[in-house]
Amino acid sequence: MNAFVARPVDSLDAVFKPRSVAVIGASATPTKIGGLPIAFLLAQGYQGEIFPINPKATEVQGLKAYPRIAEVSGRVDLAIVAVPASLVGQAIDEAIAAGVKGIVLFSSGFAEISEQGRAAQDDLVARARAAGVRVLGPNCLGFMNLSEKVFATFSPVVGQGVTASGRIGLVSQSGAYGAYAFTLARQRGLGLSYWITTGNEGDVDFADCLRWLVRDPDTDVILGYMEGCRDGAKLELALAEARAAGKPVVMTKVGRTEIGAQAAASHTAALAGEDAVFDAVFRQYGVYRAYSIEEFFDVGYAFSVAGIPAGDNLGVFTVSGGAGVLMADAADDAGLPMPALGADGQRRIRELVPFAAPRNPVDITGQITNDVGLFETSLEIMLEQGDYQLVATFLAAAGQGPMGEQIADQIGRVRARFPDRVFCAVSVFRDSVRERLEQHRCLAFEDPSRAIRALAALAGFARQRNKALPASRTVEAPTLTLRAGNYSEADSFQVLADFGVPVPESHLVADGAEARQRIADDGRAWVAKIASADIPHKSDIGGVRLGLRGGDAVAEACDAVLAAARQACPEARIDGALISPMEGDGVECIVGVQRDPTFGPVVMLGLGGVLVEVLKDVSFRSAPVNRDMALEMIDELRGRALLDGVRGQAPSDVSALADLLVRVSEFAMASGDSLDSLDINPVRVRSAGHGVVALDAVVIGR
Amino acid sequence: MNAFVARPVDSLDAVFKPRSVAVIGASATPTKIGGLPIAFLLAQGYQGEIFPINPKATEVQGLKAYPRIAEVSGRVDLAIVAVPASLVGQAIDEAIAAGVKGIVLFSSGFAEISEQGRAAQDDLVARARAAGVRVLGPNCLGFMNLSEKVFATFSPVVGQGVTASGRIGLVSQSGAYGAYAFTLARQRGLGLSYWITTGNEGDVDFADCLRWLVRDPDTDVILGYMEGCRDGAKLELALAEARAAGKPVVMTKVGRTEIGAQAAASHTAALAGEDAVFDAVFRQYGVYRAYSIEEFFDVGYAFSVAGIPAGDNLGVFTVSGGAGVLMADAADDAGLPMPALGADGQRRIRELVPFAAPRNPVDITGQITNDVGLFETSLEIMLEQGDYQLVATFLAAAGQGPMGEQIADQIGRVRARFPDRVFCAVSVFRDSVRERLEQHRCLAFEDPSRAIRALAALAGFARQRNKALPASRTVEAPTLTLRAGNYSEADSFQVLADFGVPVPESHLVADGAEARQRIADDGRAWVAKIASADIPHKSDIGGVRLGLRGGDAVAEACDAVLAAARQACPEARIDGALISPMEGDGVECIVGVQRDPTFGPVVMLGLGGVLVEVLKDVSFRSAPVNRDMALEMIDELRGRALLDGVRGQAPSDVSALADLLVRVSEFAMASGDSLDSLDINPVRVRSAGHGVVALDAVVIGR
Repeated sequence: MNAFVARPVDSLDAVFKPRSVAVIGASATPTKIGGLPIAFLLAQGYQGEIFPINPKATEVQGLKAYPRIAEVSGRVDLAIVAVPASLVGQAIDEAIAAGVKGIVLFSSGFAEISEQGRAAQDDLVARARAAGVRVLGPNCLGFMNLSEKVFATFSPVVGQGVTASGRIGLVSQSGAYGAYAFTLARQRGLGLSYWITTGNEGDVDFADCLRWLVRDPDTDVILGYMEGCRDGAKLELALAEARAAGKPVVMTKVGRTEIGAQAAASHTAALAGEDAVFDAVFRQYGVYRAYSIEEFFDVGYAFSVAGIPAGDNLGVFTVSGGAGVLMADAADDAGLPMPALGADGQRRIRELVPFAAPRNPVDITGQITNDVGLFETSLEIMLEQGDYQLVATFLAAAGQGPMGEQIADQIGRVRARFPDRVFCAVSVFRDSVRERLEQHRCLAFEDPSRAIRALAALAGFARQRNKALPASRTVEAPTLTLRAGNYSEADSFQVLADFGVPVPESHLVADGAEARQRIADDGRAWVAKIASADIPHKSDIGGVRLGLRGGDAVAEACDAVLAAARQACPEARIDGALISPMEGDGVECIVGVQRDPTFGPVVMLGLGGVLVEVLKDVSFRSAPVNRDMALEMIDELRGRALLDGVRGQAPSDVSALADLLVRVSEFAMASGDSLDSLDINPVRVRSAGHGVVALDAVVIGR
Repeated sequence: MNAFVARPVDSLDAVFKPRSVAVIGASATPTKIGGLPIAFLLAQGYQGEIFPINPKATEVQGLKAYPRIAEVSGRVDLAIVAVPASLVGQAIDEAIAAGVKGIVLFSSGFAEISEQGRAAQDDLVARARAAGVRVLGPNCLGFMNLSEKVFATFSPVVGQGVTASGRIGLVSQSGAYGAYAFTLARQRGLGLSYWITTGNEGDVDFADCLRWLVRDPDTDVILGYMEGCRDGAKLELALAEARAAGKPVVMTKVGRTEIGAQAAASHTAALAGEDAVFDAVFRQYGVYRAYSIEEFFDVGYAFSVAGIPAGDNLGVFTVSGGAGVLMADAADDAGLPMPALGADGQRRIRELVPFAAPRNPVDITGQITNDVGLFETSLEIMLEQGDYQLVATFLAAAGQGPMGEQIADQIGRVRARFPDRVFCAVSVFRDSVRERLEQHRCLAFEDPSRAIRALAALAGFARQRNKALPASRTVEAPTLTLRAGNYSEADSFQVLADFGVPVPESHLVADGAEARQRIADDGRAWVAKIASADIPHKSDIGGVRLGLRGGDAVAEACDAVLAAARQACPEARIDGALISPMEGDGVECIVGVQRDPTFGPVVMLGLGGVLVEVLKDVSFRSAPVNRDMALEMIDELRGRALLDGVRGQAPSDVSALADLLVRVSEFAMASGDSLDSLDINPVRVRSAGHGVVALDAVVIGR
């Protein structure tokens, strides 16, 4: 785990909720970087004091200006620094001396351009930290606090209009992306609480902002855009806090793919961990990962307007059969069950609309154009008689006509009778209809598939939230120090066995003669393998012999693998030959621990053979892994069905496999930074009740 | 293959391009089903003659009305029938007698409600067909011809405004879906040539409309919405004609999933074939399959505005690093290569913008706000120096400001210099900017991921189009009549061998003694299997023995499998024992032929073992399959890499596997309707150059 300096989150209050703002480098020109924030603060009606700092002016944009921040008589919470890089040092020092608590540093020319710039940045941040002053930036677009009208940004998008003040907090590592997202949020009518860009993250980073928004009473939902992360442990802490607070987090993390990661590397200095591990960490904490800006906002919108459903059964109520089928397909893709309406409910729907399809989707057909009241009556029947926590209604183009308001009111009444259900309406809406629906906390979407995806996101959050929180993931101090380098198979087995990892019966022998003495001709089949920490790939050099029956065969094989190893690897230190009984049938898996640059030790599980090699069918979790998490890892494998038994085979011992993952995680936590990696390949998973056994293992210390 | 009556496609001209229209059941009330089309025709300015037919009126909506169609003196091309089901028969007969060439039948109450209704529908259609009159419907919303203002529909969406006249033809099996799509198309500013709903498809079906639009000079792109298909052969013909004409087809086919198929079954009487087979047929003809309405229109829009690219290399040009990474991720997902800009080009970009990321994405940063000319200059460098056929530009929010027009003009000039490239711009656009871009045939999208998806669709069409058309897929008359029921393994091998399918050396023997005489002790290992058409699952009853070395072992095994079979299946007719040499290493596949209810014989390929059983990793093609198609089938397998050789194994003989698929297809075509199914499981694919061999096979005749 990476260490991090735990700075109190509320130290960011002065940055994000300042009662007074000084702008160092204030400009009278409202389109300049030092003029924009003053223009925005004035235009948007910020209620705190604004102190323009400019050595050459006595007045800036109608406000009294000060030559230096020291000459401001009142208290200054936040200093916005908008001067060229060469003047930033002095500005920061003066701001610290003046007693500010927070700094937003717009200036570029630091870590993003050169190592020299990075050194200058580190120096500035160290000075601010020593004085207890938090710094957002450098090289950032700043932030906005929409409810208190703090526009500490120079992004020109504010000049084109601002979003409503609302309950969605948005944090972006990229200024340009953040600005674009702001424009789209405004266009979609989403209400934001905060908009924050973190730039170079010299001091305040993405996870700090996340933690602060988790505590902010004005924020219900957090949208994040990430390119990389330097402190995985802090990010995990932030996500755990969000989960504990019940605040949904929607995340776009770019650089997912090989091309994307290359592009990200050329764009940012952020250290990018393995994307699959980010993915696992997001899943671990119930974070919704969005793959496009549209999905990002669709899901953020859904969380901010609708409640969290109590379950994931979906009822589709439609006036068009075709749209109903389309939505049923989308529901299946998204894993939302669509149980059929009960016989009684179906009968009652048919009584109202003889040609209705009453199953689910419930299709009441175009009849509604003749009698709009049918909508409410039949929707009520559906919800009374069916066990649906999610309700998607397709209204065709009715949302555009005068019928739209009527239907919105009907939905409002039905919602009042079934307040724990989550409602969504799909149509082309005029604004008045959309607004009325949203007042009733009913989502409004134009695209049926996007509507279903958003409902599935709500259901996924509910599923995750309804699970018991994982048992304490507190990290104990390491208790085991591994030596550097490869452990032999025998040594690996020994160190793992201490943590309860089942390893095979095995005998280390010097030669065939010793093997002959050690084992009885008890009818079992044996395997003989070369024992050497210097030969990790034993099969490749003829160092493994299988299916040996009887002492003579075992003895001959031991001598053969020793001879093969001496010939192929004359430099290798050889401990002898390792003999074990052959394992019977079962499913082969791979279990391991890797060290991720961002998140530290990561537990890995894959199905053996073709599935892991050809299809890369693996799942990850950041350690420590408890039993619930281990079971989730197993369920995430695409080839999961293999463990249920195919071709008449018995189901595998999934419970023992989960235990093994927990034990491997305990081993990783105990060995701390001394563990480089562990690879147990294969693990044989026997039939249910018969456990698992590691058939080969390599521990590597660092 | 299903037979179909090949009716000349141009017989639909009178339906879709009528010079005069009679409305039987015309109403003076412009909101009634018989009033709406007249109101629309008048309001939209249809230039042909309109004849309202109503026995009780002399004037309808200001037009002279006729009591019966027989009394119209001029020629009537198209009759719209909008009377209750009970009166339809008489209306149709009178229309036929009056010499109409086409009928649009709005009325419902036919096949969609009962078997009696279906009989009435069949009867009506038969009468029309006998007179050479085409019928659209019944139970349909009609159609629109946007350029000639023929609004032969009663969908109220027309009253809310119509789409522009354009070059996209839209055909929908669902009226309500079609109406909703029309509303969205209008809202997105898409131009349609025709909008057609097919309803019950008593006569004119989806494929007929597709074929007609392929020939229509005013239609460039065809969007289709399908729920099912009764005549797969005609649909294949239509898709082949579209492909040959170079007209892209974008298709939404619902009922993809299990829930969706259930919903479709309760919604429509259309016979739904296996969805995976539809998918394969779409792929076979280069149809783009859209999974949401949004994707449907995004891709349709892209085809209608931009040209078809000459290749699929994507250059991303951006003013925001973050958006560039997001687009690179999306490109990777979509399979679009993003080669790096050459060193010279990178150098020249850096000369213009020192802190640019010049690789690809080319990120010229926010510098553009200071010097908008940088856009054109650097984009030109990128296109001169890089081999990009697709160009995606991200403009942040510039499309909304005054800079938007300037950039649109710059793109127009660059496009003029590189006319064969396909351009796309991503921003939030004001209408004037969007229109200017589209005049330059540059796509305009708000969402970066959707933009990339649309470009990938264009590239996919180009790839498919650049392939040679498959060799003639003409269906020869069947030359082989299989007997009904299961063929034994030996008989299956024999009939397949006649078509060039490689089968193992094998000997059918009556007992062990005969086996002892037939084979030499040549060191090979043998397998012995029970030979009986009545025992398809031989292993389950102990009817297979492997790894037999020497004549004695083979003889003993033959007697053993015969004894086991007699005991387990006393009723089975037993031909003897079949002995074959054991096959060495290789990759196991499954090859088969199934009979799809829509498309007839379908060739199937899967990778053996876990991949097909657990992951359902199979690919399909509607027969006949030529060699190119066979190679595509192989490439579609998710586990394709297994055939390239994993764990140091040699690559497999993919060429021979493709030949096998072709031979199996030839067998299927030759046996025609007498083949129920073929299952070759497993096929052993040996290393490259060593061919394939069928290790077991079951032919079933019908």
